[in-house]
Amino acid sequence: MDLDKAFRGKKVLITGGLGFIGSNLAHRLVELGAKVLLVDSMIPHHGGNLFNIADIKNKVAVNIADIRDENGMDYLVRDQQFIFNLAGQVSHTDSMTDPYTDLEINCRSQISLLEACRKHNPTVKIIFASTRQIYGAPDYLPVNETHLLHPTDVNGINKMAGEWYHIVYNNVYGIRATSLRLTNTYGPRMLVKHNRLGFIGWFIRQALDGEEIQLFGDGTQLRDLNYVDDVVDAFLLAAAHENANGEVFNLGTEAISLMELVHLLIEICGSGSYTLVPFPPERKRIDIGSYYSDYTKVEASLGWRPQISLRDGLERTVAYYRKHGERYW
Amino acid sequence: MDLDKAFRGKKVLITGGLGFIGSNLAHRLVELGAKVLLVDSMIPHHGGNLFNIADIKNKVAVNIADIRDENGMDYLVRDQQFIFNLAGQVSHTDSMTDPYTDLEINCRSQISLLEACRKHNPTVKIIFASTRQIYGAPDYLPVNETHLLHPTDVNGINKMAGEWYHIVYNNVYGIRATSLRLTNTYGPRMLVKHNRLGFIGWFIRQALDGEEIQLFGDGTQLRDLNYVDDVVDAFLLAAAHENANGEVFNLGTEAISLMELVHLLIEICGSGSYTLVPFPPERKRIDIGSYYSDYTKVEASLGWRPQISLRDGLERTVAYYRKHGERYW
Repeated sequence: MDLDKAFRGKKVLITGGLGFIGSNLAHRLVELGAKVLLVDSMIPHHGGNLFNIADIKNKVAVNIADIRDENGMDYLVRDQQFIFNLAGQVSHTDSMTDPYTDLEINCRSQISLLEACRKHNPTVKIIFASTRQIYGAPDYLPVNETHLLHPTDVNGINKMAGEWYHIVYNNVYGIRATSLRLTNTYGPRMLVKHNRLGFIGWFIRQALDGEEIQLFGDGTQLRDLNYVDDVVDAFLLAAAHENANGEVFNLGTEAISLMELVHLLIEICGSGSYTLVPFPPERKRIDIGSYYSDYTKVEASLGWRPQISLRDGLERTVAYYRKHGERYW
Repeated sequence: MDLDKAFRGKKVLITGGLGFIGSNLAHRLVELGAKVLLVDSMIPHHGGNLFNIADIKNKVAVNIADIRDENGMDYLVRDQQFIFNLAGQVSHTDSMTDPYTDLEINCRSQISLLEACRKHNPTVKIIFASTRQIYGAPDYLPVNETHLLHPTDVNGINKMAGEWYHIVYNNVYGIRATSLRLTNTYGPRMLVKHNRLGFIGWFIRQALDGEEIQLFGDGTQLRDLNYVDDVVDAFLLAAAHENANGEVFNLGTEAISLMELVHLLIEICGSGSYTLVPFPPERKRIDIGSYYSDYTKVEASLGWRPQISLRDGLERTVAYYRKHGERYW
């Protein structure tokens, strides 16, 4: 797949474009010669950070807007050839304390975006950022795309609905859409201010700060972590492949226990420590146990597989925060 | 299971209580000696009809309210021992022309109800009316509960989310909830004014009016139809069984082709005719082909199985509309 040919000169919209994955995607698309428009609501604590695009700010357009705003979306989607739809509320615990906001962002706003495309840009191709969270606690490992969806929290439910709006609009209206079910993603530009958007950013910050990382439970839970550049590749491949239309794909990689992960992280940082603590009740109730993905479908269909080893990815990430930490701490 | 003992003197709330299934459930609960509160929004064309409870109006309480109203629900759920949660937008085609309203009714209002229970009545037991629509076009027949959920329209997506909010609130907060995935339900008190809430009511009306029923496609599509009294039984059994908490159950019965169904209906009515016509495009795009349920799980867990034959059920239904048709036409 010639990604340069696929994206050079193309008009591309990224929702959540100032966030972690969105901004990394923007960097890559700028390299590829795309005309990039970043839409972000800049809701506090959601991950949007203008520093994420500081080095490409003259090569992209930025529009601060909330994708819940129907009129704004009606305008912004016009003439775009690709939409990478990454805007979302991603905190599981926040979705339980405020289910309405999670519903607005992860369901209503997805309908707004899709309705805007139906009315004003039905030839666009959309890639939706879904999540392994919609599977809930796995019935078996590794989890493939035919695993039942039984989410354990409101965020998982609403992301499941958000994904299916895309598939239905693909099937009913022919608005080409693909959903990528992301597992844990890490790398430069991720939010490390607090621990509500996932554990890995928080662990990295704590290790760099020489603090004691708290591992819930016995630390044997398995996870698979994708480096953000690999995830960006998957978005580009899904956008460029017509055989991805209407499909859902797991991303993933090899599994590692959280304890092994923390050992590796502490070694790379040369600082930090860890301790095992019991699960806090509000976390335990929505915990999913071990998880890792079967990603053979995306490999067979799009030729994607992760390229960056965990050690390599963590080293790059730690180096980024050593250099730019003050913009994220 | 002694249903009389389970419900006598108990406080019971039915959302969508003036609608088809809700009002039939109300009749049964009044017989069983329950204290019944019916909440209904009376949104036009949704199925609410005060005549549905004309013969029990002095034995039930009626509160016209929309379950989207958070403050109202906060008040109405208090002290209830059972909630039969049947309020919903059920038109597939309406969900595609107005996805926002479907989202408000089938998602936001379910969160409102569950949040009201979490805050003000966490010991209640809730039975949610889900639908076979969430399976989409079957991968295999009969469809059991481990069949993947891949809805074909916005209504199916939002009902899927609505069901899962209940399961998550059961699992996370211990608010006991069961979801019944209904297949086509028919019987007295169903809406027959228009064809947007399902085909069977419309077919009955047309046969009684001596009109020509239009069957889409070749008429060989299979469906399973439950008589409403059987469905009411399932709601009561699910409410009374603790082993139903957190579970989803298919209802169902034997399959019949739509053409055979129409033949039987015309025979029973002694009037009407039918013709095969091509699918209208907006229907074809969300059609699911043949469907019938595997209901062995609910039979094994709750001892439920349908008791009323299709012929018997249709005869009772036709007799009802011959007598009361003017209140429904």
